[in-house]
Formats: sequence, C-alpha cells, structure tokens
Amino acid sequence: MKNVAILGASGYTGAELVRLIAGHSDLHIAALAAHSKAGMEMADVFPHLRHLDLPQLTKVEDVPFDTVDLVFAALPHGLSQALVRDLPDRVKVVDLGADFRLRDPAAYETWYGAPHVAVELQKTAVYGLTEFYRDDIANARLVAGTGCNAAAVQFALRPLIPGGLIDLDDIICDLKNGVTGAGRAAKEHMLFAERSTDVMGYAQGGTHRHLGEFDQEFSSLAGRPVEIQFTPHLVPNNRGILATAYLKGDAEACHAALRSQYDSEPFVQVLPFGKIPGTGHVAGSNFCHIGVSSDRISGRVMVVSALDNLCKGSSGQALQNANLMLGLPETQGLMAAPIFP
Amino acid sequence: MKNVAILGASGYTGAELVRLIAGHSDLHIAALAAHSKAGMEMADVFPHLRHLDLPQLTKVEDVPFDTVDLVFAALPHGLSQALVRDLPDRVKVVDLGADFRLRDPAAYETWYGAPHVAVELQKTAVYGLTEFYRDDIANARLVAGTGCNAAAVQFALRPLIPGGLIDLDDIICDLKNGVTGAGRAAKEHMLFAERSTDVMGYAQGGTHRHLGEFDQEFSSLAGRPVEIQFTPHLVPNNRGILATAYLKGDAEACHAALRSQYDSEPFVQVLPFGKIPGTGHVAGSNFCHIGVSSDRISGRVMVVSALDNLCKGSSGQALQNANLMLGLPETQGLMAAPIFP
Amino acid sequence: MKNVAILGASGYTGAELVRLIAGHSDLHIAALAAHSKAGMEMADVFPHLRHLDLPQLTKVEDVPFDTVDLVFAALPHGLSQALVRDLPDRVKVVDLGADFRLRDPAAYETWYGAPHVAVELQKTAVYGLTEFYRDDIANARLVAGTGCNAAAVQFALRPLIPGGLIDLDDIICDLKNGVTGAGRAAKEHMLFAERSTDVMGYAQGGTHRHLGEFDQEFSSLAGRPVEIQFTPHLVPNNRGILATAYLKGDAEACHAALRSQYDSEPFVQVLPFGKIPGTGHVAGSNFCHIGVSSDRISGRVMVVSALDNLCKGSSGQALQNANLMLGLPETQGLMAAPIFP
Amino acid sequence: MKNVAILGASGYTGAELVRLIAGHSDLHIAALAAHSKAGMEMADVFPHLRHLDLPQLTKVEDVPFDTVDLVFAALPHGLSQALVRDLPDRVKVVDLGADFRLRDPAAYETWYGAPHVAVELQKTAVYGLTEFYRDDIANARLVAGTGCNAAAVQFALRPLIPGGLIDLDDIICDLKNGVTGAGRAAKEHMLFAERSTDVMGYAQGGTHRHLGEFDQEFSSLAGRPVEIQFTPHLVPNNRGILATAYLKGDAEACHAALRSQYDSEPFVQVLPFGKIPGTGHVAGSNFCHIGVSSDRISGRVMVVSALDNLCKGSSGQALQNANLMLGLPETQGLMAAPIFP
Repeated sequence: MKNVAILGASGYTGAELVRLIAGHSDLHIAALAAHSKAGMEMADVFPHLRHLDLPQLTKVEDVPFDTVDLVFAALPHGLSQALVRDLPDRVKVVDLGADFRLRDPAAYETWYGAPHVAVELQKTAVYGLTEFYRDDIANARLVAGTGCNAAAVQFALRPLIPGGLIDLDDIICDLKNGVTGAGRAAKEHMLFAERSTDVMGYAQGGTHRHLGEFDQEFSSLAGRPVEIQFTPHLVPNNRGILATAYLKGDAEACHAALRSQYDSEPFVQVLPFGKIPGTGHVAGSNFCHIGVSSDRISGRVMVVSALDNLCKGSSGQALQNANLMLGLPETQGLMAAPIFP
Repeated sequence: MKNVAILGASGYTGAELVRLIAGHSDLHIAALAAHSKAGMEMADVFPHLRHLDLPQLTKVEDVPFDTVDLVFAALPHGLSQALVRDLPDRVKVVDLGADFRLRDPAAYETWYGAPHVAVELQKTAVYGLTEFYRDDIANARLVAGTGCNAAAVQFALRPLIPGGLIDLDDIICDLKNGVTGAGRAAKEHMLFAERSTDVMGYAQGGTHRHLGEFDQEFSSLAGRPVEIQFTPHLVPNNRGILATAYLKGDAEACHAALRSQYDSEPFVQVLPFGKIPGTGHVAGSNFCHIGVSSDRISGRVMVVSALDNLCKGSSGQALQNANLMLGLPETQGLMAAPIFP
Repeated sequence: MKNVAILGASGYTGAELVRLIAGHSDLHIAALAAHSKAGMEMADVFPHLRHLDLPQLTKVEDVPFDTVDLVFAALPHGLSQALVRDLPDRVKVVDLGADFRLRDPAAYETWYGAPHVAVELQKTAVYGLTEFYRDDIANARLVAGTGCNAAAVQFALRPLIPGGLIDLDDIICDLKNGVTGAGRAAKEHMLFAERSTDVMGYAQGGTHRHLGEFDQEFSSLAGRPVEIQFTPHLVPNNRGILATAYLKGDAEACHAALRSQYDSEPFVQVLPFGKIPGTGHVAGSNFCHIGVSSDRISGRVMVVSALDNLCKGSSGQALQNANLMLGLPETQGLMAAPIFP
Repeated sequence: MKNVAILGASGYTGAELVRLIAGHSDLHIAALAAHSKAGMEMADVFPHLRHLDLPQLTKVEDVPFDTVDLVFAALPHGLSQALVRDLPDRVKVVDLGADFRLRDPAAYETWYGAPHVAVELQKTAVYGLTEFYRDDIANARLVAGTGCNAAAVQFALRPLIPGGLIDLDDIICDLKNGVTGAGRAAKEHMLFAERSTDVMGYAQGGTHRHLGEFDQEFSSLAGRPVEIQFTPHLVPNNRGILATAYLKGDAEACHAALRSQYDSEPFVQVLPFGKIPGTGHVAGSNFCHIGVSSDRISGRVMVVSALDNLCKGSSGQALQNANLMLGLPETQGLMAAPIFP
C-alpha cells in the first residue's frame, strides 16, 4: 500500500482523483489539501464522496510529506513550481497543472507570462502523455500531466506526424469542450444560466496556452517546426472533449497508422473506418475513442477523438502515470466502463 | 466464476448491468439478449461499452440457459412471467421488471390491467429491496426488483412506518425524476427538445403503478391498510430520483429512526439532521442519501431521499441481489463512488 | 412615449426588462444603471441585446431622474429603500426587489434581518400581484413586485383561500425552480457543472423569505393567521417555476373557483380538469398555466401552477404594473407567445 | 389582413411559425394542417400555444385554399412538390422543406435520391435567403426556404466568395447544432437521455444534403465550381447553429467585406473584429451574429456565424420572405429580441 497526498482536493480534478483512488486497492489517501476550504470535511465540499473515510482538508503546509510516497498536485497554474522544488527528493510527484509541461523556459514564459522559478527541476520533468512516454514516466520522479485539450488532440494526431502522412502545414483542430475544464472557480460566464443554452468559441486566434504543448510535441516529432490552428468551443456538457481535426492526406492510411499505434493500448479505441465517436461514450472513464473519415473532396481527412477531460485528460491520466511510477499495474483503478446515459 | 445472461440488453437497465458486471471479478456475461436488435454487436448498440469483450446480441430463445447460473430479466412489463416460468429450475432469476413485484394476483391485475399468467411462480418470488429482504433474497430462486420510484420512497419511509412515528394517513411524496426511468423507447415526449427545458408532473392523481408496491409494503409493515399520495415529476436530468416526503411527526425522532436503521448499511447514508441530499451526489452509483428536516410549522417532517434510478433503483439493486443469491459478497462490483460533476 | 430607467440592468431581471420593453411601442429606455459594470456597453454585458440602440450603463447616481417617468429598480435586496425615498415624487417606481413587499415593518425585519429604513414610504407601497391589486396599482406611485415563488404559489392558491374550499392549516407547496431565480452573481453552487446534473431542495424547513409574503397575503385573505409549508428545489433549467400544491378539499370545486377567478384574465390559463402544466410551456412569456387534479385518496387536491420566474414572476409582472401606472394598456408589450422548444 | 395556412403545423417549424405570426398584425392563420395529428386542438399538440385562438388541425386536403393568400409548407422533404404544383396559381407559397432549393433537377436527384416531380415549377422557385434574393422574393409566387445549416454558413461566406478574398479551394466549415434541426419525429438517438451528455459529428465525409445548396450557391457566386468541406455536430442544446468557418485569406479584409455587406441589414450583426458570437445570444430570434478572427498563423481567417435554426434558419426566414411576397414590411413580426438566458 502506497500513501498519496492530493493537493488541490477541492477542485474537480482533485475530486476525480479521490473518486478513482477510492476504487484502487494499492493506494491510500493520506492527505487532502485545499487552500480556502482547509478545515472542512470532504463530505461538505463534495457530498458525492460522503461514504468514503477521508482525511479532513488541510493547508498544503500541514501535509505530512514524510509519510507520503507520491503527491498529486492539482493546483492553479503557477503554484506547483516552488512547492515541488521544496519537497523531499524521495516524494514522487504527478503535477496536473501546467507548470512543468514546457521543456523550454522561454516557451513557458511566452505562454504563461512569467519566468519559471524552478528551471532545474523542469529539466527533469517527463511529459505525462502515458501512451507515448511510458518508459520515461516509469522512471521519473516528476511527471507533468498534459493539458486536457492537449491530450485529446495528441491522441488524434501524434501517429500521423512522423511518417509524412499528412500536410504538417495545414492542421486545423476544432474542439467542443465540456465546462469542467474551466474548473470550479465561481465565474459569471460559467454559471448554469450562462452556459446551458450557449455554444461559443473562446481563446480564438491561436492564443490558447495548450498551443505551447502542441508546438513542443509536434515539432519534436516532426523534426522541424510545426504549428497547428486550434480553437476550443464551450458546449453545454460537463465532461468530454470532442476534437475534430481537419487534415490533408490519405484517410485510409491515417486510419491504418492510428490502428497500428493503438492496437495494444488498453485505453485507446480506434473505431472502424468512417465511424465517428461521441463524448457521451467515454464520460466518466479513462478511455479515448478515435474515428477517421474521408471526405467527398479527395485528399481530405477528418480525425475525431473523444475523451473525458477530467479523467483521461487529467486525473485518470495522472493515476495511470502514478501507477507506472510506483511500479503498479498501469491500468489499476482505471478500467471502469464509461457511464451512459 | 458464475455465468449470467442479461435479457433486454439493448435498454438502459441492461446496459447498466453490463457496465457494473464489467467491474465484477466473479461474474461472466455469457449471453446478451435483445428483441429487435438481435444480431447486432453491443458496441453498435451502446458504443460506451466498445472496449469490452461481449457476446453478440441474440434472441431470448437462443440464450444457452443450460450454461447460465443466473438470469437478469430487464424486459418490458409483462414479458417475464411466461419466460421465467419456463426456465430450468436451477437457473436463478432477478427480474428487473414489474411482473413479480405484487404478491396479490388481484392487485397485479388492478395495476397492470391483465391477469398474471404465472401465479404459482409469483408466490415464490421475493421482493427485491435488499436492505429489508436480505435473508429471503439470499435463499430465493426468483427475486422481483422493485420499481425505481418504489425504492426511493421506501428507503425514506419504511423505518418510520411501524413505530407510530408518523401519521400513516397523511403521507405525501413528491418526486423529481430523471428521464432514464422512462427507458429507451423512442417517444415524442421524451425527445431532448421536449424535455430539456420542461418540468412537468405525470401520472398525477394516484394512477402510477408503483403505488401497488407502496400499498403492499406499507400496509404489510403497518399491519393495516396504508395509502400514500404520490406524484412523480420529470426534470431535465438523466439519472436520479429525488423523493421529497411530507410527513407529520417529530422530525428528530424520524431522523433517529433512519440513522438507527441504516447505521451499518454500506449503501445508505443518512445525512446530519437538517441537511438535504441532491441527486447529483449519487449519480452513477449504488448509494442512497437520505436527509431529514423539520419545519417552522411544528409537527411537520420532510424526509428526502436521493438515488440513481438506473443503479440503486434498478440494475445496481439487481446486482446486489444477485450477489446474495450466488453466495458472493453483497457489495461486490458496487462500491464505485458516484460521478460528479 | 414615456421615459423609463432600469436600475440593476446588468442582472437577469434587468436584461429581461430591456428585452420586453424593446417590443413596447410607448416606452423608451432613457437610462440603464449598474453598479460594477457602469461604463460598459449593454452589448458587452448582454450580447443578445446587441441589435438595440441602448444607453451606456451608468452608475445610479448618474441617472437623469428628472427626465424619467418611471423607474424599474431591479437591485439586490436592501438597496431600494433609501434610493426610492430620495427620488422626486413625480417619478413612479416599480421595485422588483423585496424591500417594499411586506407591509409590517416587524415582519420585514424578521425575514430580512435588518430594520426597514423607509417605513413611511413602505406604507404607501402597493403589492404588485397585478391580477389581485389591479386598481391600487393603477393609482400607485410605488409598486412592490412580488417574489417569483410568491407569484407562482399565489396564482394557484389565492382563489381557494377565502371560501372555505381548502383546509387552511394543511397547505404544502413543493416548488421546482429554474436557476435564474438565483440571479447572475458568480457563486460556486450555481456553476453549470454543479447544477446541470443535480436536483436538490434548499431553504428547507420554512426558512425561505418568500414565506413572509405568503403569511401576509394568505392571512389577510383568510382573516386569520395562515401558515403554509413551502420548499423550493433547484432543477437543471433556466426559466420556470413549477409549484405543486398539496391541499385538502374538493378538487372539482377548486377547479371551478380557479376557472371563475381567471376566466377573463389575459395571462392566466386554467387547464381542463385533470391536466397538469409544464414550465416548458410558459418559458419566455408572461403567461401562467394552472392545473388541478384529484387523487385516488378522497378529499385530496393537487393544484399546479407554472410560470417563467424572470417574466411573469418578475420583469413581465413589473411591466404589466408599469403599464397600469402609466395609463397604458395592461397587456402592451407582453403578449408574445412562449418559446418552445 | 392576409390569410395564411401552415401545412405541417405539428412540427417544430410549424409551431415556430404560429408563435411568430401570433405577434404579427397583418397575418391571420386561416388553417393549420398536420397529417397524423389532424383533428387535434393545437393546445394539445403544443401547450405553449394554448392562449391563442387557433383553428383545429386538419388534413391538408381539407384546407380551404381558395380563402388563403399564402401557404407555409413545413412538410417532410418530398411532399411539397406535387402539393404545390396542384395549388391554385393565386396562392403564394413559402416552402420550408428541401423540395425546391436546388435549381438543377439532376442535383436534386443526386442529393435526395429520387427524381423531382414538378420540374417546371422548380424553374420558377426563388431561393429564400432573403438578404441575397430580396427583389426576386418580392416578386415570386414560390420561395424555397434554405436549409438551416445552409443559411448559417452562407451568411458567413457569401460576401467573401466573389472578390478573391479567400482561397475557394480550401473552405472548411465545422458546425455545432442544436437538436431541433432534426425535427419532432421520435427517434432513439434524439431522446433526451441520448443527447443530453453527448457531442458527436454526423453526416461526416461530405454526405449532408445541404451541400447541394452550397455547391449551387457558391459556384454560382464564384463563376466556377466551388466545393466546401462541411461537418455538422450535435450538441446538447435546443436552438442554435454555430458555424465555424476555417478560411485562408486576410482576416481584416474579410471583416470589412462582411461589415460592408451587412451594414444596413436589420437582422445581421457583424461583431467588432476579434469578437466571436455564441448561439445563446440569438436564440428565439431572427438575428444572425457574425464574428471574424485572425490566427497566430498568418493568412488564416476564422469566420463564425450564429443563428437560431428554427427562426432565422427556417420559420423566421419564411416569415421574412412572406412579408416581402405580400407587400408587407420585411421586418414585421420579427423584431423580438433573443431570449437569454
């Protein structure tokens, strides 16, 4: 039995970690930290976890890190850097935030507007897209969870980048996102009344921070700079990202490359050619569904991926990585089927 | 490992059974039957189950019952009677429909409009409200799952009936129901466009068939006829019943009785006095939350219960009963935390 | 053409007033005031009003009250008292908040937790339930709009109070409310993610402030103290209150009394006996639908009313009252049909 | 006062026509026809229209066409051809279906799978995109309403086609659609439970019938064949299409062209450069909002349009055209502001 602590346990990704770990036989939640809600019982912060025997929420500084094997840091962007730097070396860390995703400090500063304060530590962080960094993750002390959009798009595109299958200068990704990606902070535009009958784009024009991850990963895969066009949209749904990628290439070859890549992956399902996934079919789970379609216009490919942003896009990915880092079976606690309806 | 068959696998309760059993280590799905969708792959009928290795849907008559230990019958009302009658005696049955809920054949005919065709078999059926019929269920060959509304209301009221805690002649239950209780049949008034901005009562005036269960159970508990007033309402939500019971009695005494009844139950949580549950906090799970409040008007009690109609109200209850019938731990496959948000 | 000002124009009831007045041929919006959003264009605060030629939002103190015939005050509770007291006498006021609803200063202090600061003015205020205070409203300088729940319940019950039709000591009202009644303030529990799959009661136990209105109005009608039991519930919907009243009396006599009361009312529709309304059928409109059902238990009556809390329950009611106060046709600008789906 | 008949009044576009015409001072609904619901009262088919004095639903053959000035045909595709052919010449027709949209009979047969049965009549039909065919519509006897997707995309793209502003060989349109576009037919995949937590693409690969309209209109505008790539997606919302067009060209020039085109249009609002619309801000109205954004990748343009598929995309457009055909003010009955929230 390994002891874990969850920092940022009053947010949605924190609660999702608790939900997942509650069904995991080799992990024990030793501490739950939250800033403004420290001192509260988890049953009052998240009543759906009432049946669990959980520690009271504490401040981060009161977490007994010396008894903890692994820390999940589900903190607002910017708060992990100094915190992780100051943890004992023996404590492993899965950071669900953005602080350690970008290997280039200059890129970090560009996208996040402030210099990185733990540059040496950043050099040791492994990018947390499990299916592509599995071995490095197993040996890492610090893993940087990907952005949820970044995960959805990379599952669709990574296998297509290296082999010349698609035009790398003309990649357009249109995302339809559930609202939980925005977190639990009380904001006017995230009220039920504002979102329940509205569909709108945001961060248009190439300003979304997850572009930093795409630039880093796709350029590295291609061996030359690759920039994609990427626009997320908010839809009236809680969980789920549907990423529609508009590409130029041969659709059947793309489908074959995806099938080949994911053939033995437990969590990634490539649908039969021509079938397209829906977010409703992965909600509440660690699965990712991918579909490929051609178009009446020859040379066009549409690749669509669907995943649950809170699970496969964040907390499920984090647990999958923690399993590897702790020497446990990768799929442990993660095989629950999606919930539908 | 026990072999089970699910009849009616193309409906929501059928799919929920598959989802739950997929995480159960001692049950194997040997057959899935569905009428109009026989011949289809489950992945095409319910894409969220695509990752599972499941048998193709067949007709009921093609199920190899001789290899099956237990049958879950999730069929439209009326179809189970003859079917179960003709099964080999060694096959245990959990019926999720209404066919065997009412012990009195006359009551069955009154509420369901046709005579029962398996009256002898009916005499042997055990009512499937696990927390109150646990020993009988463990020894039963045939268990009749309760109505989902019937479960929600009984969890709130049963402990209050026998001891003179409430006025038995003045029980009003107002339910707010998610739409999945209506099943997957394509009906105009269940379209997204019809339900998504509407809240409406239905089966008003004491015409809902689940009243037959209330009459049977509450009268039996009280030792004299008890009739409750009961009106369900449809709200724009998938899963969940919130049952608000308006009672006359002492609120703290009622709370104490509920606490005492459910103290050691794994799935029923009685909230601190004055706290009221929400359906969002039990969705996707086998848990039931119950809250009690007094009123500014002395002598009034409000008891509110929340459960997921597809899980604790139907398929989760069915699995809980099947575990008992097969000598397995009662909670096996059922301890997953609710999904929120 | 009459000039009106809307104070609190950045909230939902403020925007609803603008929407309604935009289709009114005899009113002109001379000023829009909002506290924290003063200085902004309405098109940026409410993009759905972009096509209208509206004044910029200002602070209340910058409204040119000398050019205004009538003020709609859609302010948070407590802010109207001193403000209205200090307005020129010639300016008429419709207050959509709670400040002037309760005629008894002691009752105000009980329910709102602070003494009233404009007691003399309060004595002149007319309660704004148009269908029952029509003549007084036409002659009033200050009209106090009702609570939205208070409107929904009173439409269902007022005609039944005076004639001995129902047991006045046993009135239970269970409400299912859309979320816009909670306003536009950014609160965690009103986020889309929190509300979209949850149904929960609130203000249970007789603590909701609208009870002050019920006590005042029903006791006055009955000529003796009347207290009702009243619990609202939040459902995943934007607009609409469904008020289910559980009563004791003769259902057909109640239906006849409601039919008689509302026979010539343009906005209140009493459905055929046994039919029950839904909130989806009044959304976006100033209509109220009322249905009556008996029960299998003799002597029980269920009266259900449905209205749009933002329109008939607040801003539509306010405009209806303003029409009367300004000598305009009562229904002007208010006859638009509900939006469905 | 002109008499109109609505054929297909039991569907969503039929009900929307009734809603709009109820607020129109120069039109009178003389007949409502519906196939399977003939004989019913409109209040039972659409309870939100209960307050209106409407004719009973009849069969089409019982409509007194000799007293009717204009017919709105909101029928399933294929049923209008013979029907309109056999109407008296003096009766004007706005067809909301697809039967007369495609001028080339071969194109019709390709997209709709059957030969056109009223080819001569088709030659006289005017395409109903009011803002671009205004004069022809005013003089037409038969106007063919556009597809709702076709309207949303054409408002975004038409002004950009002729002037060489964008690359005509690389137009990608990704749509997010509310469910009412699928109509009121009871289909399993349109149930609330199926749609409320799912986002999925459909008609992928260039198979959607509205492509026939795009091919016809854009090729005609360009003077050479133009084919666009177009994929709609279903989102959990009732009303609204958000059309995101990914283009190659100069974003500011595109914005200027759209501003210039729509400057004096009453229903089309072009947002400030860089601002993007949402469907929530046009719901229930005849307005269309259009936004333009550049991208970090130079030479990319994103044009986004939002409209209500039932109103501006169908019934509102139909009424706008009917106004022109009958010599009434074009905006009559159509200026109501959108409903938000």
